[in-house]
Amino acid sequence: VTRVLVTGGTGFIGRQALAALAERGFEVHAVARREPPAELASLAAWHQFDLLDPEGAEGAVAAAEPTHLLHLAWFAEHGAFWTSPENVRWVEASLRLLRVFAGSGGRRAVMAGTCAEYDWSFGTLVEEETPLRPATLYGAAKRGLHEVARAYAAGAGFDLAWGRVFFLYGPHEDAGRLVSSVIGSLLRGEEARTSEGTQVRDFLHVADVADAFAALLASDVTGAVNVASGDGIEIRKVVQRIGELTGREDLLSIGALPARDGDPPQLVADVRRLRDEVGWRPHFSLDQGLREAVDWWRGELARRP
Amino acid sequence: VTRVLVTGGTGFIGRQALAALAERGFEVHAVARREPPAELASLAAWHQFDLLDPEGAEGAVAAAEPTHLLHLAWFAEHGAFWTSPENVRWVEASLRLLRVFAGSGGRRAVMAGTCAEYDWSFGTLVEEETPLRPATLYGAAKRGLHEVARAYAAGAGFDLAWGRVFFLYGPHEDAGRLVSSVIGSLLRGEEARTSEGTQVRDFLHVADVADAFAALLASDVTGAVNVASGDGIEIRKVVQRIGELTGREDLLSIGALPARDGDPPQLVADVRRLRDEVGWRPHFSLDQGLREAVDWWRGELARRP
Repeated sequence: VTRVLVTGGTGFIGRQALAALAERGFEVHAVARREPPAELASLAAWHQFDLLDPEGAEGAVAAAEPTHLLHLAWFAEHGAFWTSPENVRWVEASLRLLRVFAGSGGRRAVMAGTCAEYDWSFGTLVEEETPLRPATLYGAAKRGLHEVARAYAAGAGFDLAWGRVFFLYGPHEDAGRLVSSVIGSLLRGEEARTSEGTQVRDFLHVADVADAFAALLASDVTGAVNVASGDGIEIRKVVQRIGELTGREDLLSIGALPARDGDPPQLVADVRRLRDEVGWRPHFSLDQGLREAVDWWRGELARRP
Repeated sequence: VTRVLVTGGTGFIGRQALAALAERGFEVHAVARREPPAELASLAAWHQFDLLDPEGAEGAVAAAEPTHLLHLAWFAEHGAFWTSPENVRWVEASLRLLRVFAGSGGRRAVMAGTCAEYDWSFGTLVEEETPLRPATLYGAAKRGLHEVARAYAAGAGFDLAWGRVFFLYGPHEDAGRLVSSVIGSLLRGEEARTSEGTQVRDFLHVADVADAFAALLASDVTGAVNVASGDGIEIRKVVQRIGELTGREDLLSIGALPARDGDPPQLVADVRRLRDEVGWRPHFSLDQGLREAVDWWRGELARRP
């Protein structure tokens, strides 16, 4: 039996990963600080521990006895996460978790990295080739964690893969983030002001991100793997498409906001490792994904307007 | 008043750093797991905490109220330190210590890094220029720690310098390490078997290493700084010089042991940052340093033969 312990299982990616892991035959355990929301309760065996507590990892690993670990938990507060000192605490907590997991005989771990580890002066980001030069504490924390975790895994005899997440969107996204805020504004009949949005980014629906993590965990691929679509699109085109899907292009003010200083013109993942080695492809096209996201937000606004 | 908290103050470098810091006007506090040895007791205000305990850093920082931090503590068992999982625990403990230090208003920290962070296919190692590609868990742990610590310091508003230690020798060196083991063998009248020793290395007497760390802490230089002599010497010449200084060249069997696989031909520090920015130069020439080390070991063997 392969028993996976999922961290961050109530989060944006994690909540979608639970079913994806079960579909791949994992016995799914999840650790969370609080009781899971009702809709997630049946998707995993839940163990209530705080991984930031010194004893949290021990408790969760003793309860779940995992052979596999999918570590998605992190400090993720929109805006704040780039620079928060909580990033440092999560490096500590992640290393402790990994030690406890390995010490209890864990065989394979997958952890969430980020495209913010790369040097963003490169437009196409290739694992083990593009230099890593994080410009933020978030990126540096993930990059430093991977450096240590990778060397530790090699010596301790367990497998480690590191999924670098790019730009994502979909159900339960923070309402302040780009795709969600544009959808929310248009569905509420409010103006949506954005920058010119000529930057090219690599977007992937969060359900696909979660499924890719499950596939990566089920594979025997190790090292860094970009978790992304491999397709670049101008942000303004994403915004325009949301306008079409909601029928409210009239509310878009593209170019009303200034561009962010130093925002790089292009950030697109090379996905050969994910596609050819893991053997995974997205289920959602961007068009289908945005449609699904708009539908979800429509339901959400109807539930709590 | 500048109050420095020293970690690893009973260790190889740390025990020599205490007086060097006092000479520079620091009020010296030190944290250690156990009572300090008698000869160090008066060189610092000692606070007994274990930094690997979840509450150890809080206790030490509350007791010392440091404005400055010199973090030298690490797992250092000869041979084992390259690959031990203790390296991972020390990354965690070091980040926690740094958070507690910064949270209590600490202004400037210096931490010990290592030449093992660099890509050893380069012979001359230059901070911020030579690629970092550690081949060991020890090197990866230090390199990852620096990545996180540096970004954290930049955001949290305290200064951080990172002293990369090269090859050192001198009093209290582990008896199993090269210089000490050759001196020990010759002083005991035993054969000293070494490899051909054509590798070029950068050696610095541990008292100079400690003094350089004190100077770095007293300076306002930030970032990575090589702590080394800047001079390369073939290991066989070091061994031969020990033979001359002890008058027992007859006991040397240079070339009796095979070379270590993958041992790089040259590892020498570029010391422009230490010399020109910190303004520090070694006190010991290699010849003086080896002479001093031989004298110390002679006394040591007389005390406990």
